[in-house]
Formats: sequence, structure tokens, C-alpha cells
Amino acid sequence: MAEPEMFEKVMSLAKRRGLVWPSFDIYGGTAGFFDYGPMGAQIKVNIEDIWRRYYVIGEGFELIQCPHIAPEQVFQASGHLSHFSDLLVECQKCNEPFRADHLIKDKVENADGLPAAEIDALIEKHGVKCPNCGGKFSKAVPFNLMFRTNIGPGGRRPGYLRPETAQGMFVNFMTLYRFCRERLPFGVVQIGSVYRNEISPRQGMLRLREFNQAEAEVFIHPDEKSHRNFPAVADDKLHLVPAHGKEGDYTIKEAMKKGLIKSEIVAYYVALTARYLLEVGIDPARLRFRQHGDDEMAHYASDCWDAEANTSFGWIELVGVADRTDFDLSEHAKHSGKEMQAFIRFEEPKVEKVTKVVSKPNILGPLFKKDAKAVKEALEALDGEKISKHQKGKKAPIKVKVGDKELEVPADGYDIVEREEKVSGKRVTPHVIEPSYGIDRIIYTLIEHAFFETKKENEPYLVLRLRPGVSPIKAGVFPLMAKDGLSEMAWDINEALKAGGLRTYFDESGTVGKRYARMDEIGTPWCVTVDYESKTDGKATIRDRDSTEQVRVEIARIPDTICELIGGKAFKDLLKN
Amino acid sequence: MAEPEMFEKVMSLAKRRGLVWPSFDIYGGTAGFFDYGPMGAQIKVNIEDIWRRYYVIGEGFELIQCPHIAPEQVFQASGHLSHFSDLLVECQKCNEPFRADHLIKDKVENADGLPAAEIDALIEKHGVKCPNCGGKFSKAVPFNLMFRTNIGPGGRRPGYLRPETAQGMFVNFMTLYRFCRERLPFGVVQIGSVYRNEISPRQGMLRLREFNQAEAEVFIHPDEKSHRNFPAVADDKLHLVPAHGKEGDYTIKEAMKKGLIKSEIVAYYVALTARYLLEVGIDPARLRFRQHGDDEMAHYASDCWDAEANTSFGWIELVGVADRTDFDLSEHAKHSGKEMQAFIRFEEPKVEKVTKVVSKPNILGPLFKKDAKAVKEALEALDGEKISKHQKGKKAPIKVKVGDKELEVPADGYDIVEREEKVSGKRVTPHVIEPSYGIDRIIYTLIEHAFFETKKENEPYLVLRLRPGVSPIKAGVFPLMAKDGLSEMAWDINEALKAGGLRTYFDESGTVGKRYARMDEIGTPWCVTVDYESKTDGKATIRDRDSTEQVRVEIARIPDTICELIGGKAFKDLLKN
Repeated sequence: MAEPEMFEKVMSLAKRRGLVWPSFDIYGGTAGFFDYGPMGAQIKVNIEDIWRRYYVIGEGFELIQCPHIAPEQVFQASGHLSHFSDLLVECQKCNEPFRADHLIKDKVENADGLPAAEIDALIEKHGVKCPNCGGKFSKAVPFNLMFRTNIGPGGRRPGYLRPETAQGMFVNFMTLYRFCRERLPFGVVQIGSVYRNEISPRQGMLRLREFNQAEAEVFIHPDEKSHRNFPAVADDKLHLVPAHGKEGDYTIKEAMKKGLIKSEIVAYYVALTARYLLEVGIDPARLRFRQHGDDEMAHYASDCWDAEANTSFGWIELVGVADRTDFDLSEHAKHSGKEMQAFIRFEEPKVEKVTKVVSKPNILGPLFKKDAKAVKEALEALDGEKISKHQKGKKAPIKVKVGDKELEVPADGYDIVEREEKVSGKRVTPHVIEPSYGIDRIIYTLIEHAFFETKKENEPYLVLRLRPGVSPIKAGVFPLMAKDGLSEMAWDINEALKAGGLRTYFDESGTVGKRYARMDEIGTPWCVTVDYESKTDGKATIRDRDSTEQVRVEIARIPDTICELIGGKAFKDLLKN
Repeated sequence: MAEPEMFEKVMSLAKRRGLVWPSFDIYGGTAGFFDYGPMGAQIKVNIEDIWRRYYVIGEGFELIQCPHIAPEQVFQASGHLSHFSDLLVECQKCNEPFRADHLIKDKVENADGLPAAEIDALIEKHGVKCPNCGGKFSKAVPFNLMFRTNIGPGGRRPGYLRPETAQGMFVNFMTLYRFCRERLPFGVVQIGSVYRNEISPRQGMLRLREFNQAEAEVFIHPDEKSHRNFPAVADDKLHLVPAHGKEGDYTIKEAMKKGLIKSEIVAYYVALTARYLLEVGIDPARLRFRQHGDDEMAHYASDCWDAEANTSFGWIELVGVADRTDFDLSEHAKHSGKEMQAFIRFEEPKVEKVTKVVSKPNILGPLFKKDAKAVKEALEALDGEKISKHQKGKKAPIKVKVGDKELEVPADGYDIVEREEKVSGKRVTPHVIEPSYGIDRIIYTLIEHAFFETKKENEPYLVLRLRPGVSPIKAGVFPLMAKDGLSEMAWDINEALKAGGLRTYFDESGTVGKRYARMDEIGTPWCVTVDYESKTDGKATIRDRDSTEQVRVEIARIPDTICELIGGKAFKDLLKN
């Protein structure tokens, strides 16, 4: 299907049937914001529940919830304050802002990522003018994509809306490490809204100013990039697009053997991601895993794979699985002056030559007064060996962070000492493996992949073939007619299903055909109909959405039957009875 | 227990055991922000799941999810832009900001709510000085409590973080009304973070800058304030503090009969709120429902009851159940110029005298050009009878909203016409009943109410008696010793419980007593221990947290047994077998 046409059809269904729609419609709308309607919000609850089943129950990771607003220091450390930006130009005539690379993306390849001066030159060279008024553009300047606000009165304490959930897990590393009884590996997850103040949002739900992530941060020993459950996924077959090597279908085991994926643990989370995406309903024929090339990968990452789905917008990223090395913890340790390391105990204590920074209280005391103790701690927590190597024997002042302040310790304020020590273990900065899921894009894609257009009596007929576990409504419940006691019988079935925790839709108006059609459009997998025969045989009809086959089941057995179907029982097995 | 002492103990446990802790600790913390740690976040998931069972499955309400950021128009209409503020004073010497009423709350009663001039006078009269530096204060000025940001580049489009989830449901009223097939009543719910930029947050988790709400907006016919399930709650007994009448225990039926609660539907949601709070673990002896007095109630509300819990901070509000009348929909209709009404079809069409605003195209066309059609629609959607009454026969210009603009229609641009019409129904602005739950306060309170301090071998011993449905971990699973195959047996039980969707905690280190203690502190209701006998009798021990009684159960039956216990089976009934 032509792409914009497919998108239009999906969004038209989405609005009509309460899946998603653009926000603030009565006030003219605001680009980049979408509401989840009743059906969409329930799909979101369902896929997040499944996600927690994979990561919290399955992997045993710890779910936490941090604020959406964070103070500036967090993003100084993470690099978002200096690097999280797009280039902005403004029309000098009508003042309309534009994302600079979008203006020249038809002129050059990879416009995204060019430096400002090059973009200015290209705009000049191609004579690009304001599409609204024909005006000339200002020079390109970086526009930070974080939403900024102030915490408390006055402008003294800037805060930002988080651009990812990850930072909340990094800043809490030590507390979480202690909670996990000071053992590696352990994993932490967070699910929630994140924000990105796009210059000019587009592409429907794919590039939003407010969107939803589910992220896991797996803290591991830097030398142990294996995973205990690797054998369970080793034979899973995926379509891979490696950075160096041939695109094709590989088992996870083959991909490791050929060196396409750099570590077992990244391979494991790539496989787990595929399992999750298939379970929620991404079409396996339209799913691939693409490895970042060296030019695309964040400078600190050592391997990164994107789960991509083919949609009417082409291949889009749904999930990224990255080995972020020790970047995040090291940066926060540097900026906060706090230790962010795990202690790895040796089986037997060892005698080792250690290089340590030892402070000189007689210098630090008079110099830093009440901060002296904190300076001593920050100083002695530094990696003596690293400093010694860096200084090459020539002592120099060292900067340390104490609270908000950066203080400089003079060269005579410390010694670098080498000595033999009995050490019971060593401190390491864990590496982080991060599977990061874009919930909104997954929801959009699974709606598109579930969207089937057929004909019924020569009229177009839509069916949303959502997986039962994802469907917002598990069963429609109808009396054939709203009279003769059929409504009461159907209502009792409806209440019995609800008592089992299932969301149902009771409907007694219009023809049964129309009621089926309504349920098919929102992806309800089964409909239960009570008819006149039910009064004598005590059975009702269950109709299957995808095959449209029907089977009569004893009314008392209906809740269990629906639960079995949700649990994976094939509808055709019901027909055998 | 003395209050601050109890609070300190609860918060100390909360931090140590991963329930909640102050955010951004490594950067010195930021007042008013808390993280939910692994145990707290799971409690939050659990009580929100139970809430959805009450409101989405039970009541059949529609869950939606709207953005946390909203444009200014939304809060112009809601009144938050002009009214959602506290009075702020700043020290003229050290510039420290203070909430003005807090400075004089020891001097007068009800300092909260005094006008700025009175507060200034009281500060002057009592010679209140800056507690930090002794400086004098500036005059009190209102400080808006919404976090402000900018949507997109430049300052042209201010946005605010929502101070309540409710507005998202109001602005979507018409879309939701259509989704619900244009019938009243229907309900919509939203769960999520909300924001309130407190001048000086305090009281731990009770007054946060970012917190969590679960709100329901029930849209009803203004003349039909009954509830079909009222009989099911009529005999529920609650402790009521009515605005006019005697405090005491009343059944819902009695409270209605005595006229203490103004409508059946408010009474129903008060009762449902009590059921929910008791189910998640609020102590019934420390729960009451207090009616707002006329001076305390929002000017638009016609009845309001707060569910209050007694805590170490005294009685605190957990939930408000309010009849907001047609205030919200009317205000959004006025500000957006869009219709926000339901159409109530008569059983038979009636001939009625109607008063209508009829536009004059020959005047409006030349005057408003391309907006003329929208002006006509906005004009004719107005309530002719109301306008006619207001104008008392003297026609005047009328302002209408078209998109962002407010346009004035001259007096000769329309007629007010009275005529007989066959009408098939009438438009009404629904009233809204709003149960609004403060999730964080509920979590804090249920931890405090579940907190039991006992002694074990003369040492203080803490047990968190959380309800099993709320407990983050459903079962601890231990091998008595980490050898002789016991670990493997215990691990298999652990995996079987996880396969049933239960969160467990496998622990094989330290004494069993210490492992029990750890589980008791986070409120795990049961622990399963595999011992040497298990190898011969195929059974393991289940230990009950609250009674500390133990029972041996066949290993194969353990997952079902734990599920039955969570479902409400009494532990003592297991002892009978």
C-alpha cells in the first residue's frame, strides 16, 4: 500500500476507535503531542505488563520510578546539556523556526549531523528560502532539545524534563548496588514519559515531543559479558544487518561465532528483544536488527543494535540495545565527586602493589577549612594509578568536586604513594548494557502490522489482528436480541468475565454483524453471543475474530475457555469437542 | 509513638529496604522530589493495578493517557493560570524565598487563604524576620505553582506541566462522549505524574513537587445523581465527619437518609473509595471521611468529601470525592468556543418553545470573511435562552471564540428568535463527579499503617504487614543450606512461582532467621524453605509473616497454594490439612 495512504488509514481508525489522537484538539492542537484514547491506553498497559514480565519477573531486574524533572547537574554529567541539540535556523522575515538539516535533506545525504557552518553554506549555495514567506534564514545555531523549567521561585535552580529514563538509574547506582547486596550483575528498569523539545515535530507518533520509554540498565563486571541464560536463546533465528558482514538470517549462536555481535550479553538482549516484539505482535517478516556503524555509534558505546520494523515510514527504530561501557557511571562519579563503583571481593586476599593518592591534612586543613574532610575523601577516592600514569611523575594541581563546588587541590596538597597492601578485592566501574524500548513506536507499528483490510458484502471491512494479550478488550458479549431474557443471560456472562479480571464490551444495540464489526476494528479476539437456543441448551456462541469461525460452549465454561484462549490455546482445538 | 520519631523510623526503613528515598542524592538532593525504589515502585504498580480493577474493570470506565505538558489555553480555561498560586515573600537581604502563610501560621489560625495585604500586615505586626539571616521580607506576591516551560524554540508557545490529570479528560470530552456512543453516564480515568512547584516543600512524601494521581471523571446527566450499584454499598459503614451534623459511624444508607451526603452518586464513590483504601491496607480505625465546609469547598463544587487517614502528621487527605457540577466543561466550552454537551434524546419528539441565536450572514460574511462560517457556528451554538435572559430585550455585541481568537459579533449581526419547534431531545452540559486519589500519600500511609515494631531475642524487630496483594514480593524462597542439592530444589520452586507471574526473592546466604527478617521488613507475606526433609517427603515449609506459623506443603502444590493465599485463603486453613 502506498505509504501516506496506509498511515492515513491507520490514524483514521485510531481516532475513530479511541486508540490515539493528536492532543489539545479543541485548542487547535499542539504539534508533537498525542493522547492515548481508551483502547490505546489499554494496549499500552498491556504491552508494559508484558515488558515487566520479561524484565522484572523474567530477568529479575528492579523496577524503580524517578521524577520526570531533574536538576541541571544530572544533565551536565550526562552530556545532554552540551550535546543534546539540533541546529535551528529562523526566517529573518516571518521569524518561523526550522530544523536546519530538514531544509537541505533533499540536497545532500546525511544532512543530520553536519556542522552548522556546512549547513549555512549549503542553504546559501542552494538558495533555500523560508517555505512560508520566502524570507532568508539566520545562521544555524544549536537548540537544546530539553524542556527547561525552574524549580521553586526565581531562576536560581534550573530543571529539565528528562530526555530518557536512564539517568535516574545511573544517579541511583550506589543505592541500588547496596539494595542488590553489592553483587554484580544486577539490572534496573524504568518505564515512563520522556521529553524532547523538537523544533518541528512530524511523522505522527514517530517523533513526539513527549513519548514513552521502557529502559533496562544492566550493570555488569566489565570483564564478564556473558549471560547465564544465553543457551536458552542461542538457537533463536533473527534477521541481522551487521555493520561488517553480510545481511541475512542468523541464529544467535551463529552471529556470535562469526563475531557479528561483540558480546554474549548484547546478543542475549537482542534475542530477548526479538522475543518480546514478536510476542506483542510485530510481524516477523518486517523485523530486523541493524548494527550501528562506527560513524553512527555514540563515542562511548562499544556495540549497538537497533531493532527496526518496516512500516509505511520505512524502517524505523523500535528498540536499541547498546553496550554503554562505563561511560555513564564514570561521568556521574566525576561530576558528583561520589564513588560509583562495585567492590569485587577476591576469593583469597592478595598482596598487591597499589598506587594511592594520600592527602596532606596540614595543607588541606587551612586551605579548605570545613570542606577539608570532603576534599580529602574525594581526593583519596581517585584512581591513584591513573593519575600517576597521567602525570608521568610530575605532580600537578587536581580538581575535585565537593557538592556543587569544584575545588583545586595544589600539587603540594597530596602525595602519590606506591605500597604493598593486602587487598581483599578491587573496585571496578561496572559496564552498562542498555536495552531501550520506544513504547509509542512499538504501539504504532503493532497497529500497522495488525491492520487488515478486507471486504464484506462488497464493502471495505477492517480487522485489527492484535495479539489477544495485547487487545484492549478480550471479549465482546452480546445478546442476540435485547429482549426475552437474553440481555440478562449475556449480562451474567459479562460479569463473570469481569470477575476474572478481563476487560469486556457488553453491547446489545444494532445488528450482531455491526457489533462484530465494531469489535473487529478494535482487535477484540472473541465475541460471545447469547441466542434463543442458549435458553434451552445452556450454551453460548464464541466467535473467533481471525477465522470468523464459531463454536458453542457451555455458559459456565466460558470464562475459563476465554482464559485458555488468551493463554495460547488454538481456537480450532475448541471446534474438535 | 511520637510523630517525628515514627516518620524517621518509616523513612529509615524505606531508604534501607528500597521503598522510597529523596531524589538526586549524589548531587545534594532537590527538595520535593522522591524516587520509588525497587520495592516502592512495585507497591505502586500493585496499588495502581488494584485501582484499575475497581475503576476500569469494575466501573467500566475508560482509561486514557494525555501528555504531562499542556499549552497555556488549557490552564486559562481551568483557572490554574490565574488562581493556582501561593503567596511568596523574599528576604530582602539574602533573597531566600518563603511561602508567606508558613511564616505566620503559629500566629493566626487559617493563615493559608489570607489575602496578601493581611499577611503583610501580620508579618509586620509580629515582626517576623528571615529565619536564615534576620532580614526583612518583601511584600507578599502570588507565585503560580505550575512549572512553566516553552514548547518549541523561542518563547512564543508557553507550556505548563499539568497540576492534575483531570484537564486531559475535560478537553477530550466530546471525543470520549462519541467513543462512548453518545450516552450518559460514562467515566474516564487517568493515572500519572502531576506537578506543583511548591515554594518550600516539606513533610517528606506528603507535599511533593512531582507526585502521582489516579483520577476518575464521571460524566453524568445533571438531574440524575443516582448510581445503579448503590444498593451494593448501602450497608457499608464509614466514619463520617459531616460539615453540618454529628461526627460518627454511619452506614451509607443512613448518611443519605439524614441528608449528610448530598447525592447518591457521591455517596457511592465515597463508599467505593473506602473499599479501595481498606483493600490496599489503610487501617480502618485510622480512616475517616470529612465533608468540606462551605468556606473550604471550591466555588464551583456542590459537595466534596475527603478520605483522610491518621498518620504521624495527623489527619491527611488521601482522596477527594467532589461533585464539580458543570464547571469544567462550561469553562472549556467558553474558552475553546467548542460545544461540550451531551444530547439527551426524548422518548417522543416534543413541540417546544425554543429561544435561539440566529446569525445574519449578510452582516457576518463581509465582517469576518473566512471566519464567518466558524463565527456562525459558535454563535448559534450559544444558549439563546440564557442570552435572552441576560440581555433583557436589549441586544448587545457578543464575543465568540474561534480557534485562538476572540471575535466580537455586533448587535445587528444576529437575532434572538423564539419559535415553536419539534425537538427530538435537548443538549445538557454534564455534571462531573470526581474521585481523585493521591497515590504517594496512600503509599506513605499504608507503609506507616503496616509498620510494626516488635522484639526478637530482645532486639528490635520490624515487620511490614502489607496486604499480600500490595506486597512487592509475594514469596521468599530459601534452601536451608546452600549445598546438598537444596539450592537446586529451592531454585525450581522459585522458577515455578515466577512462571505463575509472581515476584519472588531467592536467597541462600546467611541464616534462615536473617533471611526471614529481611523479608519481614519489606512485607513479604510468605517464605518457602526447602530443608533436608524435603528430599525425602517432597514437601517444603511455608512460613506466614504475621503469625510466624509454618506448614509443610507438597512442593508441586506450592505455586497454587501461594496463589490461593494471595486470593484470600486464610493461612490457618492450611494448618488444618
